[in-house]
Amino acid sequence: MLFRATGGVAAFVVMFAASSAARADEGMWTFDAFPTAKVKATYGWAPDQPWLDRVRASAVRLTGGCSASFVSGDGLMLTNHHCVQACVQEQSSADADYITNGFVARDRAKELQCARQQAEVVTAISDVTARVRAAIGQLTGPALVQARNGTIATIEASTCTDRETTRCEVVTLFGGGRYALYRYRKYSDVRLVWVPELAAAAFGGDPDNFSFPRYGIDAAFLRAYENGKPVATPQHLTWNARAPQPDEPTFVIGNPGRTLRLITADQRNVQRSLVLPFVVSFLSEYRGRLITARAQNAERFREGFEELASVENSYKALRGELQSLNDETFATMLDAQEAQLRSSKTARLGRGAGDDPWQAIARADRVYRDIFYDRGFLEQNAGFQSTLYGYAKTLVRAAAERDKPDAKRLPGYTQASLPLTEKQLLAAVPVYPWLEQLQLEFWLSKTREYLGADSPAVKRLLGRESPERLAAALVAGTKLADPAVRQALFTGGMAAIRASDDPLIRLVLANDATARAVRERYIAEVDAPISAAQARLTAVRFAAYGTDLYPDATFTLRISYGKVAGWTERGQPVPPTTRFAGLFDRATGQEPFRLATAIDRARSSLSPATTLDFVTTNDITGGNSGSPVVARDGSVIGAIFDGNLPSLGGTFGYDASVNRSVAVSTAAIEAALQTVYPAPALLAELHQS
Amino acid sequence: MLFRATGGVAAFVVMFAASSAARADEGMWTFDAFPTAKVKATYGWAPDQPWLDRVRASAVRLTGGCSASFVSGDGLMLTNHHCVQACVQEQSSADADYITNGFVARDRAKELQCARQQAEVVTAISDVTARVRAAIGQLTGPALVQARNGTIATIEASTCTDRETTRCEVVTLFGGGRYALYRYRKYSDVRLVWVPELAAAAFGGDPDNFSFPRYGIDAAFLRAYENGKPVATPQHLTWNARAPQPDEPTFVIGNPGRTLRLITADQRNVQRSLVLPFVVSFLSEYRGRLITARAQNAERFREGFEELASVENSYKALRGELQSLNDETFATMLDAQEAQLRSSKTARLGRGAGDDPWQAIARADRVYRDIFYDRGFLEQNAGFQSTLYGYAKTLVRAAAERDKPDAKRLPGYTQASLPLTEKQLLAAVPVYPWLEQLQLEFWLSKTREYLGADSPAVKRLLGRESPERLAAALVAGTKLADPAVRQALFTGGMAAIRASDDPLIRLVLANDATARAVRERYIAEVDAPISAAQARLTAVRFAAYGTDLYPDATFTLRISYGKVAGWTERGQPVPPTTRFAGLFDRATGQEPFRLATAIDRARSSLSPATTLDFVTTNDITGGNSGSPVVARDGSVIGAIFDGNLPSLGGTFGYDASVNRSVAVSTAAIEAALQTVYPAPALLAELHQS
Repeated sequence: MLFRATGGVAAFVVMFAASSAARADEGMWTFDAFPTAKVKATYGWAPDQPWLDRVRASAVRLTGGCSASFVSGDGLMLTNHHCVQACVQEQSSADADYITNGFVARDRAKELQCARQQAEVVTAISDVTARVRAAIGQLTGPALVQARNGTIATIEASTCTDRETTRCEVVTLFGGGRYALYRYRKYSDVRLVWVPELAAAAFGGDPDNFSFPRYGIDAAFLRAYENGKPVATPQHLTWNARAPQPDEPTFVIGNPGRTLRLITADQRNVQRSLVLPFVVSFLSEYRGRLITARAQNAERFREGFEELASVENSYKALRGELQSLNDETFATMLDAQEAQLRSSKTARLGRGAGDDPWQAIARADRVYRDIFYDRGFLEQNAGFQSTLYGYAKTLVRAAAERDKPDAKRLPGYTQASLPLTEKQLLAAVPVYPWLEQLQLEFWLSKTREYLGADSPAVKRLLGRESPERLAAALVAGTKLADPAVRQALFTGGMAAIRASDDPLIRLVLANDATARAVRERYIAEVDAPISAAQARLTAVRFAAYGTDLYPDATFTLRISYGKVAGWTERGQPVPPTTRFAGLFDRATGQEPFRLATAIDRARSSLSPATTLDFVTTNDITGGNSGSPVVARDGSVIGAIFDGNLPSLGGTFGYDASVNRSVAVSTAAIEAALQTVYPAPALLAELHQS
Repeated sequence: MLFRATGGVAAFVVMFAASSAARADEGMWTFDAFPTAKVKATYGWAPDQPWLDRVRASAVRLTGGCSASFVSGDGLMLTNHHCVQACVQEQSSADADYITNGFVARDRAKELQCARQQAEVVTAISDVTARVRAAIGQLTGPALVQARNGTIATIEASTCTDRETTRCEVVTLFGGGRYALYRYRKYSDVRLVWVPELAAAAFGGDPDNFSFPRYGIDAAFLRAYENGKPVATPQHLTWNARAPQPDEPTFVIGNPGRTLRLITADQRNVQRSLVLPFVVSFLSEYRGRLITARAQNAERFREGFEELASVENSYKALRGELQSLNDETFATMLDAQEAQLRSSKTARLGRGAGDDPWQAIARADRVYRDIFYDRGFLEQNAGFQSTLYGYAKTLVRAAAERDKPDAKRLPGYTQASLPLTEKQLLAAVPVYPWLEQLQLEFWLSKTREYLGADSPAVKRLLGRESPERLAAALVAGTKLADPAVRQALFTGGMAAIRASDDPLIRLVLANDATARAVRERYIAEVDAPISAAQARLTAVRFAAYGTDLYPDATFTLRISYGKVAGWTERGQPVPPTTRFAGLFDRATGQEPFRLATAIDRARSSLSPATTLDFVTTNDITGGNSGSPVVARDGSVIGAIFDGNLPSLGGTFGYDASVNRSVAVSTAAIEAALQTVYPAPALLAELHQS
């Protein structure tokens, strides 16, 4: 399954991003710059503006880090099973284990709320580059960042004044080369309609993840509500339960989360030699701890499912990225592209008022290396995956930030972003104490390991305690699992925070000055100079290659084009589609290759020839999970849920010969709804459209 | 603590090894090539031959992967706590927890046998290069390896005919540039005399490991026995419980296990981009699984101690190696050294009869990369750390190999090496089923992850089972934990093996053909060409720099010279010694910074000014653990137990400015024996000498 776009695991590796001209099928294009001519030249046809407008209006961003699309007039959304796992996990209990058994809402009243999820549809895009640039002027350092973030906050707050139903977001593209204002219609009540059994959705589990041939029905349906009723979505994709045809053109509309294709060779070196080796090793140990802890009893096994699935997915994706950067051929190709640009006539443009942008970035990278662990453990990923620590940090920060004018607040606490922050903070979701303790213990012990037992910051966290004892005491003592307690602290503001004796609030307060200091150093010495240099690099690129370039992924709406096509691996052709017959062949009876119970039961009524999954050349990445695969006629024929192993290097560069996206076909979902998990009402709704 | 020289964890990273001239204090020198002139020039004094002969006769190799020295006339040996941890673990139970409480033998009759340990003292070294070279002649590929290994087996078997008390070993130096026959007096009955509490030996635990200032009493005493009596060791070092003096010359005599200083840039690239990233991530997950499994109850916590300590130590050492190769300054320096040699006038010598040796090695490395995971999971590290799998593999291999003539057997099964193999196979030591299951499950699941669920080799191992279920069934079903069962299978040879229905024997048999095939491919396409190329590279080096070079470490006896000296870290001087006062300051009350119970009790009688640990410039690495630090007068003033963090890059190159070895002082051990763990008889024995 694809790397979701957000969350603590991913956050460690996010830097910025600021290529050469795109090759065939390459690119995650913004809707205001679709490469019509190129698509027409390649496929003999290209979408016109009404076509683009229609699919854009049907495309959904899920704030949990995924994509989706409306597929009925009543707010029904198609996405992936792994995009709703957290919700299914929250709604499950020993008596109602929807992870294992799947879930079908018998009627709309039985649809289950996903408390932390929000659906967002782009309604307008406008270029605000001039306004942000004017605010930045000749500023540098923290002043640059302050001016940039302040202007962004002001634009967002002043454009979307109705924050109940709209959200505004200024998106930084080309690492600061362009700024675009995205206006969204938002739906903050999202409910679960249907998921298959885990064994059907994730057949093959971690061994099959990021590989193909593949046999998973990684699909789910959600529904957007407003005022307790399904929202009317007249603009939606037509459900088309037919098999994909070899070489037919396909369009994927979704929200790719993060690519690093425009970073410099120096930045890639930081990833290859520091960031990725650290994260891969760090996640490995966490994975090991989780696997063993989860195996202790049936309850933990169920409760720990989503967390382990998520970490295994991230681990595999990031390990693939590291392998791609350690591949000499790939690395040499990327470096050569940069060398070509750097030696081009236009490179002098980059120097502009300042010095060489490549050198400026390399200088900033030296600071980035110096503060990498401090920033990671104390600020960016403080508390690691602990939900409770996250609550405490949000509460402490929200109290401080809400006392400031909007333009001076930290991102996430501005007027425009607070509604989602608040929704996620106050959502009533279960917390598993054993998991929280494991996460806090792991974070504290790794913080000590990487920063050193003698680090003053570590001493402020641990005092004379061990990570094991402190984690146990924090989980035993905190009351933050209770939404009412969080609500009171949120409402009470800084006075309530200061008066609180909650041990997690105290811990976050003890760490906060250090955390803010490393954040500020990062802003002044890394973010600001890289931002300025990347704006100059974008000018160089535009001058060298024209402005028909796509920016790096930013978890905002993009469209990619391509076709249904397999590839060649070690001299053997990999066909582009799989069928139910292949699933039956591959089943061993043991996890994760066990045939799902309901599929086994319905086996005789399933046609072995029905297409299950398929691959296309569309250029996608994590965050695209759940994206509709749209045919030329605008109908949906699948949902993206993964990439193949070679696509992991796609973070740094796209290779059309081997990079493939993996989708579950609407034909397979239709078969599942017909005979495996009978859902006649849902089918009727899909076909009504 | 230093990386021990042997064992499964280390085995993944071992390749071969084949520099420029050594700088001040650099080098792990063989006793037949001590750089007397260089030492004299640096220190104004150098040991003469009688001095060297004396210390050599006192120096001990412990087959568990460590070093030691005789320090009394009755076979008493000084080594490290972490070198005897496995033995202490084996001897411990809930009622007698010697790990936690330490152990002092009240009298010699109470000394505890370390069933798998053997002590070995070099008695003669002779050059057999000509004989091995003559056998190799112009052979290539498997024939080269066969001729080489066959000749080595013949030399060993014919020289040491008394295999009860002697052992012969032909050591490959300079990756095949030289061959030396080492003759050992061996003592296969080794007993535990004294160890402190773990909290004293390993104060600071993993956080302090590979760092300095340091406050551990990582010391232990063993005794060599023969025919039930302590052996007489008239040649031993004089115990000298004085503090080390700044800048005084020090000599370290021991068995460094593995350095890779003579590998080519291409081989370093294999380490940096493939081997080390894999091993670091692999060990991380194993570490995570162990930490959580061990924390489940007090019994597992005790039983899992040695395994976790060992894996954490390996992890930290290997991560340090990877970091050093990812350090651009360090990597550039190493590459420049190679470039200089390669462009030298003598480089043409390397081409000799064949082609360029650097290119030949790079070609072999491509095969090495291709078969790395197959070889690692199916042959070299099959079963990973599982003791039971190791028994099964040894039994299956021994049965097959003993039916062959000596010269055709696999290493480890020749007449010369079988006695130690047999001793380790038949030793009665406890096996912990939960740990075995964890290890087998981890190995099986990672094998599937790296080789793929569709690999025929994986299918031969797993059939239709999951790693979890198969591991549980293997541990529940095998009888190999019983030494009598192992003895019967060993004695019964191939007939008994074939007749066995033990599930682990069946599993090893099922895997054996694949395992042998990948081994043979490695020999033919990696070992043989690299061996031939490295012999030519050695000729180039000798021609360029003279023959006063030291070979890479091979877990055979070496001597290094240096002095007591701190270093400068981030502009701050690190003093060369620590005292008990520092230990008291650093204690927090919580593991692993808890003051040992007995030290706390004896605190008032311990002088805070007594030297605890110290650092020297001696060039050492894993396997040197337990090595005596010998003063100019031939007395012992400490035992090496670690290196500092910068010393981890020492695997690839020595940097005199920051590379330091860490030793526990005899003064600290003496204080411990006097007041903390009163051992008057032991003290008397030490002072008698």
